[in-house]
Amino acid sequence: MARPRERILILGGGWAGFVLSRNLSPAKYDITVVSPRQNFVFTPLLSEATVGTLEFSHVVEPVRDRKQRINFAPAVARSVDFAKKRVSCEASIVQGTATDIVVRSEPEKVESTREMRGKELDIQRWRQGTKFQLDYDKLVIATGCITNTFNTPGVQENALQYRDIEDARRVQRRIRECFELAVLPNKPEELRTHLLHFAVVGGGPTGIEFVGLLADYIRGDLLKYYPQVKDRVRITLYDVAPKILGMFDESLSTYAMETMKLQGVEIKTSHHIEELRWGEPNKPPIQMDPKSCLTLKTKEDGETGVGMCVWVTGNAINPFIKEALADIDEFPEASIAKRPSDLAKDTKPAGWKVKKNPKTGALLVDGYFRVQLEAKDETTAAMNDVFAIGDNAMLEHGSPPATAIAANQEAKYLAQRLNKNDFDHAAKFSFQDMGLLAYIGDDKGLMQMPHTEVTEKSKMFPEGLKGRTAWLVWRGAYLSLVLSWRNCFLILIYWVLSRLFGRRIQ
Amino acid sequence: MARPRERILILGGGWAGFVLSRNLSPAKYDITVVSPRQNFVFTPLLSEATVGTLEFSHVVEPVRDRKQRINFAPAVARSVDFAKKRVSCEASIVQGTATDIVVRSEPEKVESTREMRGKELDIQRWRQGTKFQLDYDKLVIATGCITNTFNTPGVQENALQYRDIEDARRVQRRIRECFELAVLPNKPEELRTHLLHFAVVGGGPTGIEFVGLLADYIRGDLLKYYPQVKDRVRITLYDVAPKILGMFDESLSTYAMETMKLQGVEIKTSHHIEELRWGEPNKPPIQMDPKSCLTLKTKEDGETGVGMCVWVTGNAINPFIKEALADIDEFPEASIAKRPSDLAKDTKPAGWKVKKNPKTGALLVDGYFRVQLEAKDETTAAMNDVFAIGDNAMLEHGSPPATAIAANQEAKYLAQRLNKNDFDHAAKFSFQDMGLLAYIGDDKGLMQMPHTEVTEKSKMFPEGLKGRTAWLVWRGAYLSLVLSWRNCFLILIYWVLSRLFGRRIQ
Repeated sequence: MARPRERILILGGGWAGFVLSRNLSPAKYDITVVSPRQNFVFTPLLSEATVGTLEFSHVVEPVRDRKQRINFAPAVARSVDFAKKRVSCEASIVQGTATDIVVRSEPEKVESTREMRGKELDIQRWRQGTKFQLDYDKLVIATGCITNTFNTPGVQENALQYRDIEDARRVQRRIRECFELAVLPNKPEELRTHLLHFAVVGGGPTGIEFVGLLADYIRGDLLKYYPQVKDRVRITLYDVAPKILGMFDESLSTYAMETMKLQGVEIKTSHHIEELRWGEPNKPPIQMDPKSCLTLKTKEDGETGVGMCVWVTGNAINPFIKEALADIDEFPEASIAKRPSDLAKDTKPAGWKVKKNPKTGALLVDGYFRVQLEAKDETTAAMNDVFAIGDNAMLEHGSPPATAIAANQEAKYLAQRLNKNDFDHAAKFSFQDMGLLAYIGDDKGLMQMPHTEVTEKSKMFPEGLKGRTAWLVWRGAYLSLVLSWRNCFLILIYWVLSRLFGRRIQ
Repeated sequence: MARPRERILILGGGWAGFVLSRNLSPAKYDITVVSPRQNFVFTPLLSEATVGTLEFSHVVEPVRDRKQRINFAPAVARSVDFAKKRVSCEASIVQGTATDIVVRSEPEKVESTREMRGKELDIQRWRQGTKFQLDYDKLVIATGCITNTFNTPGVQENALQYRDIEDARRVQRRIRECFELAVLPNKPEELRTHLLHFAVVGGGPTGIEFVGLLADYIRGDLLKYYPQVKDRVRITLYDVAPKILGMFDESLSTYAMETMKLQGVEIKTSHHIEELRWGEPNKPPIQMDPKSCLTLKTKEDGETGVGMCVWVTGNAINPFIKEALADIDEFPEASIAKRPSDLAKDTKPAGWKVKKNPKTGALLVDGYFRVQLEAKDETTAAMNDVFAIGDNAMLEHGSPPATAIAANQEAKYLAQRLNKNDFDHAAKFSFQDMGLLAYIGDDKGLMQMPHTEVTEKSKMFPEGLKGRTAWLVWRGAYLSLVLSWRNCFLILIYWVLSRLFGRRIQ
């Protein structure tokens, strides 16, 4: 009996991987998503959950679906054999358990374990997940990127990242913790001030939205519970560039800076972070101790005490793409889509590697998102069964920005091609610029019209929208993208409640 | 200028402490709650949150209040000096931070830390909170109890407790984790079966409610996502007593057992747990490893593999009451309410200690919840400024059961006395039996009428209510006790949603 459906393996459950999995035809494909996280995170609303307007459960959708059309393996991919069509995986299931252990198989993340009353525990053994292999007929690489710390000393260890639910929960807890620490009896006055200084590094849309909501949350809600520290709270946004929201037009960026300053956010553009360490400024560094504060050192200002530093400065290529997808052991003869005429001469493995952008390290794909191999003599051969979408891929004919909207469009396009199997016939992918949106706090948003074409709307608002209208568009736009209607409904209710009666402190 | 209000210090933010804090007159008292948890947990709905019917945030209320009438110190009490009227505290704020550290200052809980890439970290230093002292005019001890493991080997380390939100979150994660582990490729068949065996130890109302909801959740929701393991799932309830729900009448208890058996819950009464360890049954024990299963050993059945063991077997006195409140250094001359006529003879400290129930170790209080001191010759002296309510206190004239309802009544009574300051004039506390309620799964509840008086209702239903009516009463009764209207509203919405469309898997 012939196997009726092709096995498609999707590495990654973020925007690209998740949207693809939900748009592929389950009648045609046996779909498996491999991801260390069992939930897709609706990143545009992550900050709303962090500040308690929403629940974290409102901004996630399970990768597994109730109708069993999508299989899920809670694992990370370790290597791919293109010739054998097989992926080696390591289960990464242990995210928090019986024993308080947080073991995540992503090599860039740091693990946590439980101190067992003096017993030495074999952490290395926990960290290691069960290994297994998955065979595929088609493979889609959508593992995304990791946070780029630019190798700034101390940032990887001491800054809070802001990519998924666990990160956001940590930020949420630390905000409250800083307030509680600052009002404890017997705390030195200076330390109180440091603890209530919140630093965010990165002036892109994610950083701006988080800072905007943080300011709303602290001034609108938290300070009702802690009025005694009103004058100590500081929020500072750092960016190395001379302006924030670099992808927006000058006037919108300026408006954002002005609005945020009025809200009490200090904006330090053209600032270079040199170090982040535990301990108070101008005192000897200490080992990590959450009861204390951190010191952020910039080239321009020297040392400043902060209670928390959230790091949201863009993408670096993840180690799987970097290390596992490099040289190949065996040339995947059967997978080559279009055979260059002179290819036969040299298909020895040593001669071929996965084609990447030399600067970013992203996979350089063709117009149909096919991953390409490259010989020493720069001959290129695309594979017809291996694809890459999202932030870890780059289109050779020009890539869209690394946004959720772009990943979403790419995933939908690829799903269509795969469902129809019309590669080489269909038009190559082209990104449809939908404009840009950002929330900047104080109920205000920014909306920039698409640059590519002059639409009716952009003629009406040549500089984009700003202020309250943009804020409403912002909310509506996000809501319509949320995937389950249950979450839509709950998000609406929570928005109304927090609007009428304030947020609950978290 | 005279200090206008008396400082009242409440140790503990559970049912007793929280309800007291909200019922004291802020005009009369400067109220401070000392508790390691910043939220009060509405324990009767904890299981509903664990299985995803509700959010965890619906079943908590912040101890701090928005109007700043109640101060809060996130700390545990370490010792009390009755003569100086001063409590030594240790801040326990670091519950999860920047650095993934979970340091809780309760000595009975185990701490967790982050493994820092080989760096040895000074865990002891994190664990130690900032120390400070608080002076009081009146002190209320409401620190509650800890889980009684009866010194069963391995239980303290390896069983999941079920007292607060963090415990419940761990249970929630482990349930899902067991399913994910069980469907991973390459798992041995036996291990899959062990992982999907869920054990609950303790047949009281908490254990029964959790088991009932767990069965609903697994069969009604989780198995939709994991139909392939349908026949492997087992839920077993263990109790050392010959019947479950010992405090209920025989007929209700029997009904509960029958209903739960129909739901597929195995009930093992008269079973003695001898050990809980990591590893598979009849194989050598292993160190804790969440990828594997546990082995539960009973006297009657020998070894059985389980994916998780939740331990809900009643109360043990907490170490603060046990160790810190024992002998006293200085006799609190000024605090003695009624001086026994022959007291003057011997007020040397060595002669006095805090009066406790010799069996349970609970503080033996008088009819107004005043903590008493006891001399060697059994002379008793009550203090007029130190009180104890809730599970850590026992009334000399007979104590109510250790339930939330009793703690609630005690707190309200004491708040009234303190507000009116009518000790010795008012009637002593007497518990009003409101009957008993329990949920047993499959939309069915039990309700037992009060035994103390023959009410109209109990005449109508001499054996109490059971089945669907009791379930409705159960839901209504809980809801009306929830403290904020916002939570009431959200709980209703969530109940309707999960009734109509099923729970979300967590």
